[in-house]
Amino acid sequence: MSMDATHDPQRRSFVASANGHADFPIQNLPLGIFSPRGGVARGGVAVGDSILDLPAVAPLLAGEARRAAEAAAGDALNALFALGGGPRRALRAALSDLLAEGSAQQAAVRPHLHDAAACTLHLPARIGDYTDFFAGIHHASNAGKLFRPENPLLPNYKYVPVAYHGRASSVRVSGSDVRRPKGQRKPANETVPSYGPSRNLDYEMEFGIWIGAGNAQGEPIPIAGAADHIAGFCLLNDWSARDIQGWEAQPLGPFLAKNFHTSISPWVVTPEALAPYRIAQVPRPEGDPKPLDYLWDEADQAQGALDLAVEVLLHTQKGGPFRLSLSNTSHLYWTFAQMLAHHACGGCNLAPGDLFGSGTISSPTEDGFGALLEITQGGRKPIALPNGEERRFLEDGDTVVFRAQAKRDGYVTIGFGECRGTILPAT
Amino acid sequence: MSMDATHDPQRRSFVASANGHADFPIQNLPLGIFSPRGGVARGGVAVGDSILDLPAVAPLLAGEARRAAEAAAGDALNALFALGGGPRRALRAALSDLLAEGSAQQAAVRPHLHDAAACTLHLPARIGDYTDFFAGIHHASNAGKLFRPENPLLPNYKYVPVAYHGRASSVRVSGSDVRRPKGQRKPANETVPSYGPSRNLDYEMEFGIWIGAGNAQGEPIPIAGAADHIAGFCLLNDWSARDIQGWEAQPLGPFLAKNFHTSISPWVVTPEALAPYRIAQVPRPEGDPKPLDYLWDEADQAQGALDLAVEVLLHTQKGGPFRLSLSNTSHLYWTFAQMLAHHACGGCNLAPGDLFGSGTISSPTEDGFGALLEITQGGRKPIALPNGEERRFLEDGDTVVFRAQAKRDGYVTIGFGECRGTILPAT
Repeated sequence: MSMDATHDPQRRSFVASANGHADFPIQNLPLGIFSPRGGVARGGVAVGDSILDLPAVAPLLAGEARRAAEAAAGDALNALFALGGGPRRALRAALSDLLAEGSAQQAAVRPHLHDAAACTLHLPARIGDYTDFFAGIHHASNAGKLFRPENPLLPNYKYVPVAYHGRASSVRVSGSDVRRPKGQRKPANETVPSYGPSRNLDYEMEFGIWIGAGNAQGEPIPIAGAADHIAGFCLLNDWSARDIQGWEAQPLGPFLAKNFHTSISPWVVTPEALAPYRIAQVPRPEGDPKPLDYLWDEADQAQGALDLAVEVLLHTQKGGPFRLSLSNTSHLYWTFAQMLAHHACGGCNLAPGDLFGSGTISSPTEDGFGALLEITQGGRKPIALPNGEERRFLEDGDTVVFRAQAKRDGYVTIGFGECRGTILPAT
Repeated sequence: MSMDATHDPQRRSFVASANGHADFPIQNLPLGIFSPRGGVARGGVAVGDSILDLPAVAPLLAGEARRAAEAAAGDALNALFALGGGPRRALRAALSDLLAEGSAQQAAVRPHLHDAAACTLHLPARIGDYTDFFAGIHHASNAGKLFRPENPLLPNYKYVPVAYHGRASSVRVSGSDVRRPKGQRKPANETVPSYGPSRNLDYEMEFGIWIGAGNAQGEPIPIAGAADHIAGFCLLNDWSARDIQGWEAQPLGPFLAKNFHTSISPWVVTPEALAPYRIAQVPRPEGDPKPLDYLWDEADQAQGALDLAVEVLLHTQKGGPFRLSLSNTSHLYWTFAQMLAHHACGGCNLAPGDLFGSGTISSPTEDGFGALLEITQGGRKPIALPNGEERRFLEDGDTVVFRAQAKRDGYVTIGFGECRGTILPAT
């Protein structure tokens, strides 16, 4: 691809903390909702250790960029997402100029930069519906092996981007504590179920996809152009109570095991920001079927897979951080465009601010498994932490942090910030 | 129970069409959102063939009743639902007096009665999350038999009020046409799936439950008092594409097979209106387990099951209506309070305007099966309609209508109006 100015590694910001920032250099410019101390929630952009107030700088912008900044005036980005890719890209280009070293507007911009450490971050959008996919093939395979060692992947897996509906109301922004859920559990060695705190609480390392412009009910979104309906990405922790899941989930799928809390990182990293960080799609194994036509687009395939390193860190009450895994988004079996085209292929209407989870992202090897279920083989093989502690599943007081970074030679590294949650004891 | 004035069968309304009305006598007074021709959407109450404008009559009311009517000023009833049972009951009592024969306010009320036939009905609330239960035990058993003839009910069924999350965005009010979905299907006699219009389109006769006051995340709703969180009820058609469902649903449950469209009746029949129409809870079969403590409340059990006749009618392009089934809500295995307490037992936060489906309501006998899947045994035994047509599943142009009525000796019969949808050909 040809490099546009917003990706130019030579470009620096007059916001000094942005230059060399691990997550938010001027080449990233992710969108979010923040409130300064004592102020109302509004749209903002992360740049270094600062947050730029979007509606406040709208008068410094023109045309589509201004329209996009004005759409971020409320306490959710749904209106900005609804505008689609054009205004969002115009906003990125304009903000990159506005924040660059040598910007003529530096004096006008400075009053609208807030110290991020003194701000509260909120959910970036009102989530209409939340859908969780199952596109991490190594996770699907590892989880399947626990039940069907000979035949871990079901026959539909390589044809259908499998997904299920999740709970939108309980999605919370990074940093919100996670109350250990109670529920019905029936271990194999007990004859009747009981109600109590989950004993097998787990995380799932997922990637989140924010939907931009939606579709009318009954009108599918063709795979060509489906990616244009994506407003951005985040990190997502699909906290899972494995004991509740194992007992409740037949025949209709997971329910209470996953609806007590879902954590997401607050910053929406745009498709524009991530455009350079692509690698050739990991080839499907020899003999895998070609996707059906409604899921197949040469341009989508040619664009390649996102190449993001995703990391899981555990802090216990006694130590850490300990890295539990390092994986990569390129291990997803389906592209985001395929997930989106599939979701709408029967006429289901998507809306700005809908959220998808990718499914747990695991590598083929143990050091990149995206959930304790896989790492400890369903709790049968506890892991030893470097400080001598052991874990089968999560304990009260444990903190799980996800991070992700995009690197590419010749480009500046950008990141997602973190997705963090600490386990509180059951009530 | 002692009869309050709102249920008095002697009470008549000065709205003449209400007296003897099959659905909406003055003893019902269901809530909804309507717009008169050329007017904006607002809250209303059905009385006979008229709709009373709630915000317009608020000045005629006092105290909690007035507050409830004012909360219905917008285009959704969420704010009214959020007030909980007290204001809703006060509103019912006040409206019953206001609309009764001999009401001193008759002249002040009349200008705010609209001819229902000239109004448009809308979704009564903005649905935050939609959850579909599986509480119709005869349906669960009939559906299970198609896959596991020896063991149709799974081991968790009599312990867990099984449910899964559905799609909120595609819920539509009665009368909206239903586009036949396309999707991946793989019949047993084909080796690879194909994408195309569903060949096995079905309805599911369900009862809908509207949530009133919600709960904070992490704080379960105890079973005692759980029923107070219900704002009302409706009829719900969980349209289902059986061929898509059969292929996609493993291992995470139904997804596209059910998210293209869900139809609901527009009027919210309140728990107060339905209070008299109860029968002793159908006893669980000998040997069934007692529900776990968090699902067991003597008062809830003593209140008994709702005794509503629910009917499915089919209109084809050549004839009808033909009755496909007549069942009863008393066939649900779990009470609505049990469903609600279960949903929140792990800390999942419910909100005003959330919607539950009960699961398909089937009788033990074929004349009361709630879906074609059961009536035709998965399509293997087509049914003959009285005009000579046959049906395995629904055909384009078919219209499915649900109706429900509550009858009890000494009381006036009340109804739900209808839940109607016509199948349009796939695009």
